[in-house]
Amino acid sequence: MIFIGERINTGFKTIKQAVLDKDPEPIRKLEKNQPNAGANYLDVNLGAVSGKPQDMCWMIESVQEAVETPICIDTNKPKILAEAIKACKKPPLINSTTAANDKLDAVLPLAAEHNASVIGVVMDETGTPNSADKRVENAGTILARAMELGMPPQNIFLDPIVMPLKFTQDQAKEILQATRQFTLFSDPPPHIVCGLSNISNDALHKKLINRIFLTMAIANGMDAAICDVTDRELVGAALTAELIMNREIYADSYLRK
Amino acid sequence: MIFIGERINTGFKTIKQAVLDKDPEPIRKLEKNQPNAGANYLDVNLGAVSGKPQDMCWMIESVQEAVETPICIDTNKPKILAEAIKACKKPPLINSTTAANDKLDAVLPLAAEHNASVIGVVMDETGTPNSADKRVENAGTILARAMELGMPPQNIFLDPIVMPLKFTQDQAKEILQATRQFTLFSDPPPHIVCGLSNISNDALHKKLINRIFLTMAIANGMDAAICDVTDRELVGAALTAELIMNREIYADSYLRK
Repeated sequence: MIFIGERINTGFKTIKQAVLDKDPEPIRKLEKNQPNAGANYLDVNLGAVSGKPQDMCWMIESVQEAVETPICIDTNKPKILAEAIKACKKPPLINSTTAANDKLDAVLPLAAEHNASVIGVVMDETGTPNSADKRVENAGTILARAMELGMPPQNIFLDPIVMPLKFTQDQAKEILQATRQFTLFSDPPPHIVCGLSNISNDALHKKLINRIFLTMAIANGMDAAICDVTDRELVGAALTAELIMNREIYADSYLRK
Repeated sequence: MIFIGERINTGFKTIKQAVLDKDPEPIRKLEKNQPNAGANYLDVNLGAVSGKPQDMCWMIESVQEAVETPICIDTNKPKILAEAIKACKKPPLINSTTAANDKLDAVLPLAAEHNASVIGVVMDETGTPNSADKRVENAGTILARAMELGMPPQNIFLDPIVMPLKFTQDQAKEILQATRQFTLFSDPPPHIVCGLSNISNDALHKKLINRIFLTMAIANGMDAAICDVTDRELVGAALTAELIMNREIYADSYLRK
């Protein structure tokens, strides 16, 4: 399982303030918690706080000063991405491209050049698909374009776009079905990822819904998630699901990782 | 989700003693707990304590004196089954037949005659299959034979045979794959059930493994389980999985059922 820690995001007040003050302490605190909890990447999101590439680079450098965990560059601005990718000490994961042509043109050549991985969110110029089939079609567009540029499928993380269970309940099944179909694209298959917390948006039992949905997604072939890696029950559910999928060898101590 | 309460079983000391003493109190206690927790059937298992049909009938009558919940007759002895089925006030679920000819001949005509449902465990004369394919083949044998006798597919509960994760880790994936294929047999499909606790046999984190496996099985189409219905976290996981599969309508209060 590839866990992408979601907390270094200016959507959280302490992180927003840290960026405004250029105070690395709040970021360092999360930095240490998340890798200790098993994060394989740390998502870094400047949000709407600033449009300056140097502010994103400052966030990335603040993270890298304390931990070795690779960075997941979370931006939709090509100008920020171009600078941020150069600030990363290890090949980063880029969050994200879509299947829209202008996005693919802006993101994939940069990713290929820097040996970066890319999250491919399966929306296109017309928006977010409602069906599994359209999700698969858009995923195919992203994957094909990446492979044309010489990127191996393992550098692509397909994201079927998780929708809130409470408001669009019929979508969860489509998302799980699309996930299953993504595993058939290539051998080895691309990675499959989601922004997990969306599933429980405005729901009462958020953590329960998050971990049950992730478990079901793993049963369908998902192998990565942008999530709260400090949620021990979530991580325990995912590790158990991976054992059941025979991806890890059983040991009584498997939760201790 | 169809929950089959597993606790009225002489494998539990208090139940064994109750049968020996013909003391209905310990059975009545479980009777009330399990339906309150959401059991749709109560599995009644005489085990090796006695070979007398009248002892099984006594257990069934003790249950029926206090609750309306239908009975799941758990026996491998045709003589006991023939009497027990007559003791049931509502159409019972029979646990179980296999795909072996002598079992099918002994169980299915009785089930058809009494409008009972049957759990079809996908083993045959050669034992328990290792592969998904052989499980599906045996399931097909059971289902075809039942339908020849006029039983509707919804009266068949196919059981892919859950094996302990700790000892036969490769089997879990085969079981999930078989489950998915069982859903394609007919429309409406047969029910799909498992004896859940087997998955965590001798494991350290039994309850966690039980609920994660059940969640993954539901993601593959399972809709019933013989399990500890008083385990609230297990039931909560299953109800959440059913919401995600769009089988129940979302309400913030969905866990309160």
